[in-house]
Amino acid sequence: MPSISEKGKHMPASPIRKLVPYAEAAKKRGTHVIHLNIGQPDIKTPKVALDAVRNHNIEVLAYSMTEGSETYREKIAAYYAKKDIQVTAKDIIVTTGGSEALSFAMGTIMDTDDEIIIPEPFYANYNGFATAMGVNVVPIASSIESNFALPPISDFEKLISEKTKAILICNPGNPTGYLYSKEEIQQLAALVKKHNLFLIADEVYREFAYEGRQHYSILQEEGLENNAIVVDSVSKRYSMCGARIGCLVSKNNEVVQTALKFAQARLSPPTFAQIASEAALETPQSYFDEVIAEYASRRDILIAELRKLEGVKVAVPQGAFYCVVELPVVDADDFAQWLLEKFEMEGDTVMVAPAAGFYATPGLGKNQIRIAYVLEKDQLVKAVQILGKALKQYNN
Amino acid sequence: MPSISEKGKHMPASPIRKLVPYAEAAKKRGTHVIHLNIGQPDIKTPKVALDAVRNHNIEVLAYSMTEGSETYREKIAAYYAKKDIQVTAKDIIVTTGGSEALSFAMGTIMDTDDEIIIPEPFYANYNGFATAMGVNVVPIASSIESNFALPPISDFEKLISEKTKAILICNPGNPTGYLYSKEEIQQLAALVKKHNLFLIADEVYREFAYEGRQHYSILQEEGLENNAIVVDSVSKRYSMCGARIGCLVSKNNEVVQTALKFAQARLSPPTFAQIASEAALETPQSYFDEVIAEYASRRDILIAELRKLEGVKVAVPQGAFYCVVELPVVDADDFAQWLLEKFEMEGDTVMVAPAAGFYATPGLGKNQIRIAYVLEKDQLVKAVQILGKALKQYNN
Repeated sequence: MPSISEKGKHMPASPIRKLVPYAEAAKKRGTHVIHLNIGQPDIKTPKVALDAVRNHNIEVLAYSMTEGSETYREKIAAYYAKKDIQVTAKDIIVTTGGSEALSFAMGTIMDTDDEIIIPEPFYANYNGFATAMGVNVVPIASSIESNFALPPISDFEKLISEKTKAILICNPGNPTGYLYSKEEIQQLAALVKKHNLFLIADEVYREFAYEGRQHYSILQEEGLENNAIVVDSVSKRYSMCGARIGCLVSKNNEVVQTALKFAQARLSPPTFAQIASEAALETPQSYFDEVIAEYASRRDILIAELRKLEGVKVAVPQGAFYCVVELPVVDADDFAQWLLEKFEMEGDTVMVAPAAGFYATPGLGKNQIRIAYVLEKDQLVKAVQILGKALKQYNN
Repeated sequence: MPSISEKGKHMPASPIRKLVPYAEAAKKRGTHVIHLNIGQPDIKTPKVALDAVRNHNIEVLAYSMTEGSETYREKIAAYYAKKDIQVTAKDIIVTTGGSEALSFAMGTIMDTDDEIIIPEPFYANYNGFATAMGVNVVPIASSIESNFALPPISDFEKLISEKTKAILICNPGNPTGYLYSKEEIQQLAALVKKHNLFLIADEVYREFAYEGRQHYSILQEEGLENNAIVVDSVSKRYSMCGARIGCLVSKNNEVVQTALKFAQARLSPPTFAQIASEAALETPQSYFDEVIAEYASRRDILIAELRKLEGVKVAVPQGAFYCVVELPVVDADDFAQWLLEKFEMEGDTVMVAPAAGFYATPGLGKNQIRIAYVLEKDQLVKAVQILGKALKQYNN
C-alpha cells in the first residue's frame, strides 16, 4: 500500500474536530449544546447580496476572470477608499475566501523551509496552510495579561533568521480579539523594512472594532507599500462565510503579478459568490452599525458574566468577536470533552474551543479556551452560568 | 524591497495569457477573433441547476461542511454507481473545483521534491499545482502518431525513482482528447501496484466519449482501491465552469482522511455552487445525449476540415473536446501571435493555444496547437478556413 506524505501526516486536524463526536453523542442523549466554539456568525446576510443571486440571469455558468471581474475589483477599491486605504483594482486579486489569499501570499513569497513569524495564539488554520506549503511557523508569544498586545519588537528581532520571509498578524485578532494600535503597526512596519521582510495582515475582521476604536490597516502606512500584503474576506463582514470570497491586496506589483500565476492555476473564483459579494458592497452603513452595536453589547455582557467566575481570567477583546479565557483547570481540552461527555445543567451544556490549538508552542494555552460571541445575549449568559457551575463540579 | 519566492518566479504563467494583449489589440482594430483556445463550453448549463440557485431560501450564508454535505455526497455516490463505479459518501470530499482536488491529492501523497510522472502533453495547470506544492513533474512523452496513446510501460519503468510517488493521467485527455482503453488502465494499475505508487486520474471529461466508446475509470479496476485517487469536477459535465465544484474520490480511507485535513484548513467549498451542483445531478440523460451528439458532430466536422489542409496532422480525439494539431510551422507560438497581430480574412482571425505549454520537455510540441471545439459548427469551419489561408501566407 502506498504511503501518504510526511506533510499529510503533519497536517494539523482542526482543534475542534475531535470534540465533534462528543457533541453529537451529547445531542443524541437529549442534551442541548450551546456552541461557543464556532466562528460562524448568526447575523443575517444582507438581503441585497442574497437577492442578487436569486435574480441572476446566467445561462452558461462560465469561468470568471482569474483575478475577479474588473467591476468587482473597482468596487472593492472604492470600499477601501472609504476606509482611507488607497488602492486600485490592479492591486487586488479576488480569491476563494481569505484562505486562498493567504495560500497565494505564502506561495508568492516563501519557499520550502522558509519561516514566517506569527504572534500566538493565532488562527489555527495558519498552521495548516504553512504545512501544506512546506514552510515553518515561528511563533512569538503574546500574553493574556496584556490582552495579547504586540510582543516587544526585541522579541521579534531574536527570532529573525536568514529563513525569515514574513511576519503575519491577524488584526483584529482571531482568537484574541486584540486590535493593534497605529503605533504597534508602525513598529512592525519599521521592523519589516529594516529586515527586508513582508508584513502580511489578515484584516477580515476590520469592521469589528469596539468602543469607538479605529482599525489601522497596514495598507495605510506610508512607505510600507512594497512590504504589505493584506488578506481579506467577505465572510465575517457580511455574514457570508459560505460564499468563499476574499481577496489579496498589495501595492507591490511583483507580488500581485506572482500571486496571479498561482490564481491562474485554479482558473477563477466562484461566480455566484462573486455576484453576492459585489452586491454586498451596496450594504448600507446602518447594517454595520446595527451588527457592531449587537456584537459590542454581546461582548460587554459576556465579559461581565465571565468576570463573575472565580479563578477565570478574560482578555478584553477590542475587535472581532472572539475572546480568550483562562480557566482554573490544568487541561482545557479535557475540560471541554468532559463538558460534552459528563456534564449538563437543566439539559444544557456548552462546547468551547480549547485554546492550545491556537498556539504553536507546545504547552502554551493549555488552560485557555476561545469563546466566539456569535450567539444571542441570553444564550451567552446561560452559557457562562453553565461554565461556572461546570468548573466547580469539574474541580471537585 | 523584499523578494518573491523562487517558487513564485518559477510558477508557469498561463500559456495563452501572453497572447491575450494581441487578441485585445486585434479586437480594437475591428478584427473578429474566433477563439479556438478556450476550454469554456458554449453549451447551456442545465436549467435545474440554475433554478436551484434562483430559488434558494438562505438567510445566513453559512459555512457548509468541510467535506461537502452528506446528501450531496450521497447523490454523487449514486451518480458514480450509474457509471459502474462503486463508492460511498465517505469516499468523497467535495472540493472547490477539480483544481483543489488535485492540490489536496498532491499534498496528501507528496512531499517537497517528490516526483509525479505525467504523460505529456498534459493540462498545463498541472505544472502550476506541482510548482505551488514544491513537487516535480517528470514528463513521459506520448506521440501524435498514436493519437497520444499510453506510452509503453517500459518507458514508465525507466523514469520511476525513489522520489516517484504517483502517476497522473487525464482521461479522456486535455489537450489530447485521448481516451485510455481498459487495457491501458490495467497496465497502469499493474505498474503502480508493483512500485507501490498512487495513480491519480483526472476524469472530469468522463461523459465525453465518442463513437460509442466506454470510459473506464480507475475506480472500476479491482485491486486498485488503495492506489486510485480520482479528481472530478462539475465544470465540463454540466457546463458549469464558474461553479468551482469538484471532488476527490478514493477508496483509500487514509488518503481521504488526510485530504480532509487539507480541506479543513480552507473551511468549506462554496455554498451556492454546491446547491447548483447537487441540483445538476437531476439533469436528464437527454441533456447529455444532445450535448455529446453536438460535440461528436463538431469533432467530425473539425477533423474533416483540418484534414483538407496541406501539411497538417491531426490527432483524432476519442473524448473530451480538444484536439492537438501539428502545423507546418517551426514555432506555433510565433504563428499564434502572428495570426492575431498581422492576419485577417474578411475581418476574421483565430486565436489558438500553442501546444508547447502543454509539454514539460523543452522543445516538444513547438509545431503543435490545441483546438477546443466548443464553438458552433459554422464557426469551426470558418476557423479552419482561416487557419488554412493563414498558413499559406505565413509560410511565404
